[in-house]
Amino acid sequence: MFLLLNSAQVLYDFTAEPGNNELSVREGETITITNQNIGGGWIEAKNSRGEVGLVPEDYIEVWSGYQKWLLLAQKTGVIQLCAEDDEWDEEWDDVKTSGGYAESEAGEGGAINRGGAHGSSMKIALNKVLIAISFYMMRVRIYTVFQGGEAGPVWAYPDYQLDCVVADPKKGTKMYGLKSYIEYQVTPTTTNKPVNHRYKHFDWLYERLLDKYGSAIPIPCLPDKQVTGRFEEEFIKMRMERLQGWMTRMCRHPVVSSSEVFQLFLSYKDEKDWKMGKRKAEKDETVEVMIFSTIEPEGLPDLDLIEVEQKCEQFNRFTRAMDDGVKDLLTIGNEHWKRCTGPLPKEYQRIGKAFQNLSSVFNSSGYEGEATLTDALTAAGKTYEDIAQMVAEQPKKDLHFLMETNNEYKGLLGCFPDTIGVHKAAIEKVKEADKLVATGKITTSEKITMSKRASTMSYALQAEMNHFHSNRIYDYNRVMQQYLEQQGKFYEMIAEKLRHAHSQFTTM
Amino acid sequence: MFLLLNSAQVLYDFTAEPGNNELSVREGETITITNQNIGGGWIEAKNSRGEVGLVPEDYIEVWSGYQKWLLLAQKTGVIQLCAEDDEWDEEWDDVKTSGGYAESEAGEGGAINRGGAHGSSMKIALNKVLIAISFYMMRVRIYTVFQGGEAGPVWAYPDYQLDCVVADPKKGTKMYGLKSYIEYQVTPTTTNKPVNHRYKHFDWLYERLLDKYGSAIPIPCLPDKQVTGRFEEEFIKMRMERLQGWMTRMCRHPVVSSSEVFQLFLSYKDEKDWKMGKRKAEKDETVEVMIFSTIEPEGLPDLDLIEVEQKCEQFNRFTRAMDDGVKDLLTIGNEHWKRCTGPLPKEYQRIGKAFQNLSSVFNSSGYEGEATLTDALTAAGKTYEDIAQMVAEQPKKDLHFLMETNNEYKGLLGCFPDTIGVHKAAIEKVKEADKLVATGKITTSEKITMSKRASTMSYALQAEMNHFHSNRIYDYNRVMQQYLEQQGKFYEMIAEKLRHAHSQFTTM
Repeated sequence: MFLLLNSAQVLYDFTAEPGNNELSVREGETITITNQNIGGGWIEAKNSRGEVGLVPEDYIEVWSGYQKWLLLAQKTGVIQLCAEDDEWDEEWDDVKTSGGYAESEAGEGGAINRGGAHGSSMKIALNKVLIAISFYMMRVRIYTVFQGGEAGPVWAYPDYQLDCVVADPKKGTKMYGLKSYIEYQVTPTTTNKPVNHRYKHFDWLYERLLDKYGSAIPIPCLPDKQVTGRFEEEFIKMRMERLQGWMTRMCRHPVVSSSEVFQLFLSYKDEKDWKMGKRKAEKDETVEVMIFSTIEPEGLPDLDLIEVEQKCEQFNRFTRAMDDGVKDLLTIGNEHWKRCTGPLPKEYQRIGKAFQNLSSVFNSSGYEGEATLTDALTAAGKTYEDIAQMVAEQPKKDLHFLMETNNEYKGLLGCFPDTIGVHKAAIEKVKEADKLVATGKITTSEKITMSKRASTMSYALQAEMNHFHSNRIYDYNRVMQQYLEQQGKFYEMIAEKLRHAHSQFTTM
Repeated sequence: MFLLLNSAQVLYDFTAEPGNNELSVREGETITITNQNIGGGWIEAKNSRGEVGLVPEDYIEVWSGYQKWLLLAQKTGVIQLCAEDDEWDEEWDDVKTSGGYAESEAGEGGAINRGGAHGSSMKIALNKVLIAISFYMMRVRIYTVFQGGEAGPVWAYPDYQLDCVVADPKKGTKMYGLKSYIEYQVTPTTTNKPVNHRYKHFDWLYERLLDKYGSAIPIPCLPDKQVTGRFEEEFIKMRMERLQGWMTRMCRHPVVSSSEVFQLFLSYKDEKDWKMGKRKAEKDETVEVMIFSTIEPEGLPDLDLIEVEQKCEQFNRFTRAMDDGVKDLLTIGNEHWKRCTGPLPKEYQRIGKAFQNLSSVFNSSGYEGEATLTDALTAAGKTYEDIAQMVAEQPKKDLHFLMETNNEYKGLLGCFPDTIGVHKAAIEKVKEADKLVATGKITTSEKITMSKRASTMSYALQAEMNHFHSNRIYDYNRVMQQYLEQQGKFYEMIAEKLRHAHSQFTTM
């Protein structure tokens, strides 16, 4: 399920003046804001038919559930924003040098060794090491982990929520038309300048993000690569929807969305810029457990080993339980989908046909005064045929989104065992520290550093879990609301249809 | 399905004065009129708790859909009432002599011979030969077939619609408690004096009516004799409901309801009266095709053979088609019943459990601000469990009556082949008449009589079909209204429940 953060609801009718690049909109219509930086009280928007034009700002209400929630979460201390800070480095290129310090102890292999690899990075004199670039302002922002009220450690969130729209899939060809592919238009809400990407570019981005952040942050898989068949159009639509969902989730993540590679993907200037950026990203060495070297638990005390272990176990239990719950819901949802699109509408159709059949039999009676009943019976029969169709079409309107959200979460939860595994391995290594000191393998100072690292990793995991939890609460609130609202409307519509069918019978 | 013609709706609250045999009733309550001949502006009524007492007439509105319809049907000429006639014989015992004239040519066998058996009865000097006794007035009324406007021939309908209430099944024993049986209380709306009958008495009545009227009027079977099992109470309830349906249908029939045997069943004075009446009914000789001797198409011309044949064929086609339609609906209804009480609620229950499970997983997150979502999710889960129960219970509230009505009609329609068969055989015999005259088997005068009889039979069939059609239109109107109303309410209730569940999620 994708949440269009730039959707808006039209409050009043507005009729475009010809030749002014304006867009006529109707009260209640949902439009997509394509540019909100027009000025003069105007915004640029797109309607559901794909027409783009200017609409007065006062005539619309921006749908901003997520922003509203973010605001509330900030106020209640669940999320703490990183305040603008004059001390921030103006030159983000300086920070880039951190890419060079990763002298990985690669030879030793395994997660714990990879976990221990960022010792050297600690030497880098950076107080705030998790870098995010607010790409359209081109200013460097430094994010870190804060004590986020009672919720525990949280990521530093940017004060502007990034989002993007994946739209307009277009067929492209290369090799003189021998090979064809689908290109999607990706438009970030910050620049409003669309860039084009093929599925394989998304896949490239996924690989980079997984490589870079996978140890600390679950990077969910992209939608399946599966090749279509006859339903190409439907498949493209579905893939686009899922790419949108994936991108929205990445945009929402303060660490991921502010990464250089993600911003390159969203706002490269031209083909040359894209190719250079790609090469640079592929050479990035702050990957895997190195990412922990860029995380600073700001003002937070080191955790002790038992606490780290407890937190880790708690998250492990939770993600496993949720994984089971989500999979269970998906199984049931799938079965329900099948019933709602298969046997159930068939049965309503047969009921409808039986009423209509009886009506036509009655019609052949040759009896006077038959018309009112036969007309009403036919109408009742048609009503049940309508209901059959409604039942069959309904899952696309509600169950679909419930399934998509849970599918997304299944993907996300599937990443946690790896993320948690890294932590567990680190904990094991710290547990061995005393023995390693005794046998002279490491120094006492190195033991303290290891313990510090484990503490940092735990803070990162806690920040990530809090991010996960707050998003989960938001997502499940939204999707359940959407599901129940649509279900309610659906049953109300059936009731209304039945009331109408009922009214056609005589009330003698 | 049974239609309680003596139900009434309470229009205003009425508080009983103690010691006056009055009954307190509330606005909107449905009561059953147990005696409307109290006078002085009072009626006697029973509430749903079985309490009986007096209620002011002005405080209630009699539910009288059937009577209203009857009135309308009369006005539009579909049904013509037999006007009170001073010439009616005051002594119904005189008429009884008609029982003695049936010198059946039984030896010849077969329907046509039985059809030809009432030749002698024609000698009886009775212009109006279909006798019905308005038992509570103890006056003889003579019914006949009228030309009923455009609808064609109709039975003469009494000006008072008889009905009865089958209620209060009670266990009785005989042979010193060795044998037990169920006795039902049958209360006719005319006398309001209840009589008791066991199922085997109903069965006895059925046999008598079938014997007497079966050639001209379809007498539907009684509900199954099947022996219960563990669900005795449910079975008794169902049987009572079906006996009520059967009795109501018999009450509605102007010929059947006015018969001596039927009135005996409804209003015998005491055990002696009942036993004597039984013996007399069992000796009745105006049975089988003899019944046609009691039918007089008043003021209607003789039909010609081709017309008789055409009418017969039309009815044959219609009843077969309706039989197919009704059976089809019953098959579909049965399947729908199974789905609604089996897999469908199970699935809603599983959805409900999955939501609740997810809620309890979320609850274990240890994350702040989880409560609103988990409470709402639990409520949503419980809502789907409620829906599961509603779905499972709904068929009893609507589909049940649709099924019962169609079951009744299946029974009725199953009688038509026999009724129509008698007519077809008669037609065949008339067709042979010329040959029979030529070979000296019958006289020309006898040929004319035969043709006259076939015409009478056709009028009887037409009157019966018109009775069937008008009742069918009434019944299907009622049952479809009831079905659609209940279905509409059901879906509205689900929608309401879902709206409530929806409202519990935060609207940030």
